[in-house]
Amino acid sequence: MKSHYRMKLKVKPIEMETGTYVVVMNKEDAKELGVMPLERIEIHNDDTQESIGVVVNVSKNFVKKGELGVYKDVFEAIKPSKELYVGISKHLDSVTYIKKKLQNQKLTYDEIKCIVDDINNNYLSQIEMASFMTAVYINGFDLDESYSMADSILKSGNIIDFNKPNIVDKHCIGGINGRATMLVVPIIAAAGLTMPKTSSRAITSAAGTADSMEVLANVNLSFEDMKRILDKTNGFIAWGGALDIAPVDDKIIKIEYPLSLDPHGQVIASVLAKKASVGAKKVIIDLPVGPELKVKTIDEARKLAEGFVIVGRKLGMEVKSLITNGSVPSGPAFGCALEAKQVLEILEGKVHDNLAEKACELAGILLEMGGKAKEGEGLKKAKQILNSGQALKKMKEIIAAQGEICSSSEKVPISDKFIDVYAETSGYVSDMSIKGLNQIARFAGAPSDKLAGVLLHVRPHSDINRGDKLYTIYGTNLDKLQFAYAYAKKIKPIHFENIILSRVE
Amino acid sequence: MKSHYRMKLKVKPIEMETGTYVVVMNKEDAKELGVMPLERIEIHNDDTQESIGVVVNVSKNFVKKGELGVYKDVFEAIKPSKELYVGISKHLDSVTYIKKKLQNQKLTYDEIKCIVDDINNNYLSQIEMASFMTAVYINGFDLDESYSMADSILKSGNIIDFNKPNIVDKHCIGGINGRATMLVVPIIAAAGLTMPKTSSRAITSAAGTADSMEVLANVNLSFEDMKRILDKTNGFIAWGGALDIAPVDDKIIKIEYPLSLDPHGQVIASVLAKKASVGAKKVIIDLPVGPELKVKTIDEARKLAEGFVIVGRKLGMEVKSLITNGSVPSGPAFGCALEAKQVLEILEGKVHDNLAEKACELAGILLEMGGKAKEGEGLKKAKQILNSGQALKKMKEIIAAQGEICSSSEKVPISDKFIDVYAETSGYVSDMSIKGLNQIARFAGAPSDKLAGVLLHVRPHSDINRGDKLYTIYGTNLDKLQFAYAYAKKIKPIHFENIILSRVE
Repeated sequence: MKSHYRMKLKVKPIEMETGTYVVVMNKEDAKELGVMPLERIEIHNDDTQESIGVVVNVSKNFVKKGELGVYKDVFEAIKPSKELYVGISKHLDSVTYIKKKLQNQKLTYDEIKCIVDDINNNYLSQIEMASFMTAVYINGFDLDESYSMADSILKSGNIIDFNKPNIVDKHCIGGINGRATMLVVPIIAAAGLTMPKTSSRAITSAAGTADSMEVLANVNLSFEDMKRILDKTNGFIAWGGALDIAPVDDKIIKIEYPLSLDPHGQVIASVLAKKASVGAKKVIIDLPVGPELKVKTIDEARKLAEGFVIVGRKLGMEVKSLITNGSVPSGPAFGCALEAKQVLEILEGKVHDNLAEKACELAGILLEMGGKAKEGEGLKKAKQILNSGQALKKMKEIIAAQGEICSSSEKVPISDKFIDVYAETSGYVSDMSIKGLNQIARFAGAPSDKLAGVLLHVRPHSDINRGDKLYTIYGTNLDKLQFAYAYAKKIKPIHFENIILSRVE
Repeated sequence: MKSHYRMKLKVKPIEMETGTYVVVMNKEDAKELGVMPLERIEIHNDDTQESIGVVVNVSKNFVKKGELGVYKDVFEAIKPSKELYVGISKHLDSVTYIKKKLQNQKLTYDEIKCIVDDINNNYLSQIEMASFMTAVYINGFDLDESYSMADSILKSGNIIDFNKPNIVDKHCIGGINGRATMLVVPIIAAAGLTMPKTSSRAITSAAGTADSMEVLANVNLSFEDMKRILDKTNGFIAWGGALDIAPVDDKIIKIEYPLSLDPHGQVIASVLAKKASVGAKKVIIDLPVGPELKVKTIDEARKLAEGFVIVGRKLGMEVKSLITNGSVPSGPAFGCALEAKQVLEILEGKVHDNLAEKACELAGILLEMGGKAKEGEGLKKAKQILNSGQALKKMKEIIAAQGEICSSSEKVPISDKFIDVYAETSGYVSDMSIKGLNQIARFAGAPSDKLAGVLLHVRPHSDINRGDKLYTIYGTNLDKLQFAYAYAKKIKPIHFENIILSRVE
């Protein structure tokens, strides 16, 4: 800082968070300092002798000459009294490494660590992060780089120590409905393995595991809550957001979202960093494949699957990747309460559908990995735990420990506002648009409206008659329900095959 | 809009421009509407029945529940009374096409036009634009795409019709110092060709042509001024910013700047769009090549040179690209006033250095292209116009017509604050860091301080003795001058060769 010219500016606080370090300078001051909009400057607090690098926005009127607009994130980081010094910033090394990835060069561990640290410190702008993730999308990460990214993301946040041996975990990549997790956790915990499941809320789907579990129990658990519950029940299903694990990952996901960037190398790093953050030692990755899902082909899934195994090993985890059939919905429900109800019905032994079967298969492999079943006998053991009612008992314990809201399928709230959709023609259901059904549920209000969603009454590959009830759209907001219905009529998510449309004789 | 659920929110104006359409929603409202931060929504003014797509930022406190923070750009576009409706937005087609470029697919004319229009309308966010330019940097534009981009950029802004036949123009790609343009224009105009030169201000250099010309004359000309001056003098040297030509290009440059993205296909489009915008028919492109310049190798320059010719032809222009030696400074001056003074000294016949020679060579080719000299005789003609004083006479006319500030080299203001830098050792000057000298000039205050800069007293490939004056750093701010001097001592921009450092006998 002292080796360059600097200006003293009066702080004008701006009561908004931007997620990256940004300040606003008056156009004339920026010219005087010799900086361009979006360039990086260094701001210095003379009282604390602290400096940080920030990106400059330039305004003619929003801040006056002599003022510096300081957003909340920057304000909290630099804690200015009344004035701050601004000066030209040293170039960030991380920007050099981002450029290197743009030029399709492999990044070293230290280079990736530097980028991750600068994202974590809010130093990198949206433009720089977007450019980086675009370059990773186009040029890719190899498995060394995925490992570097995973380990750097892991170290950027809290690493939770539950002080338990053999912690197991599962993660699903790009699935849409079902909530197999809410079946796997009680089965695994009932068998005596430790499964501290931290889940996310929905981003593009009608319900995330945390959203759906929240219909049954409190999911906003502190670390102390989690530890206590784990001692008691061997498992929980909580929202992971309160733990501040892998915070960089959330920033990256936010940037990736507008262009649906999801480079495989980054998906591997992101998921495994979160698993390692909770101390998981044995992990299964569920990779549903389907034309409408994130992973579209078996070949793509296989490459991704291998990446998870290899990078996981480098991080000290035993990972098994399971490529699953994602071309049909996982059970009939889309939406927080509807999916939670379905899970309880399975645990209660009222239904056994493809979701129940999937959960048993996944749990079976975890039981084998955790030494609770012999090789090849995991599925049998999982079904036995489910069918015997042990899993239901465990789920009730977990719900009680987290803070019960509801623990019986009959008590799961159902909206009294709904619209039934009927078949306009007879025929054979060839397939269903999972994305379409998900979108109908979202238009109906999911996930913010817990009762909103879609419940299917037909299965793929079944014969139906004109006038049969296909599915019901639920929701508490009548406007949203109407819009969802209009959308459903337009996109027709249930597809028929081999139907004679007209016959002239 | 009407096919989706919408919410009515109270407008809270935010007195700041962001350059793209952004609004701020309260976190709870965003959840209710079902949108994520950085997602696009549609806002609707029920009074005017107008809607626009905008990107959402989400805040906990900056806007209250029920409020919508509306930045100035959006406010002016939608002109809300007190309330606006917000709803889920249709996906922008341009985002689909950006994704296509990320997947290394060739874009059609219509697809590129759509992206350019959405940038022009402020629809695309910084993240989307950064991702697009990164993809173009990595995957490239072919010449068809460059043409599509150039034509779309051209049509995004004003197209100026000076109503003159055979308008000629020149452009320099990535040169740093010199201002050959300020010599070429008077030579060409003196020969009777029309050269309406719109120039930019400095971004990374110590002076842009517009900044340097501004030392001699008013450069903020309206279209009417330009037309009047052109009728009188055949040429002018003005700042191009007031004409609103190719406004999209300025937005793209702003996004490219933080990561120094300058994909060749985009450089071609950007430059030629601006030439076509002023009606140029015959254009020369000066491509200086040097290790520190934008174009580093002859091979790179040749590819770029061919691109300019081919895309230019598609746009209806005759383009000649000239690859020039950019390994040494163009004349001794870095900085607005210093470069302007050097230009006048050349016109006054006081010096004839490599800058003068370059200007004559470039002007010679334009004279041949414009039919004012036979093939192979342009250089001779240009030198004759320069040496006879016709060019100086024309420059004085142009200066007078634009609004004279200064028209004689002796009257160009020089700062009385300066620091001389002396040789610390004797030897042969092998080369000079043009970038280093430019940066010293910028640290000294250029370009916002017109008098700041560097004046070289030695030439490359000359012998000098210890204690000889190497260069002088000028500037009106003593602090900046001291910082520039400290930087100069550190980087030592003048390099010596074959010097016996010590001798022990």
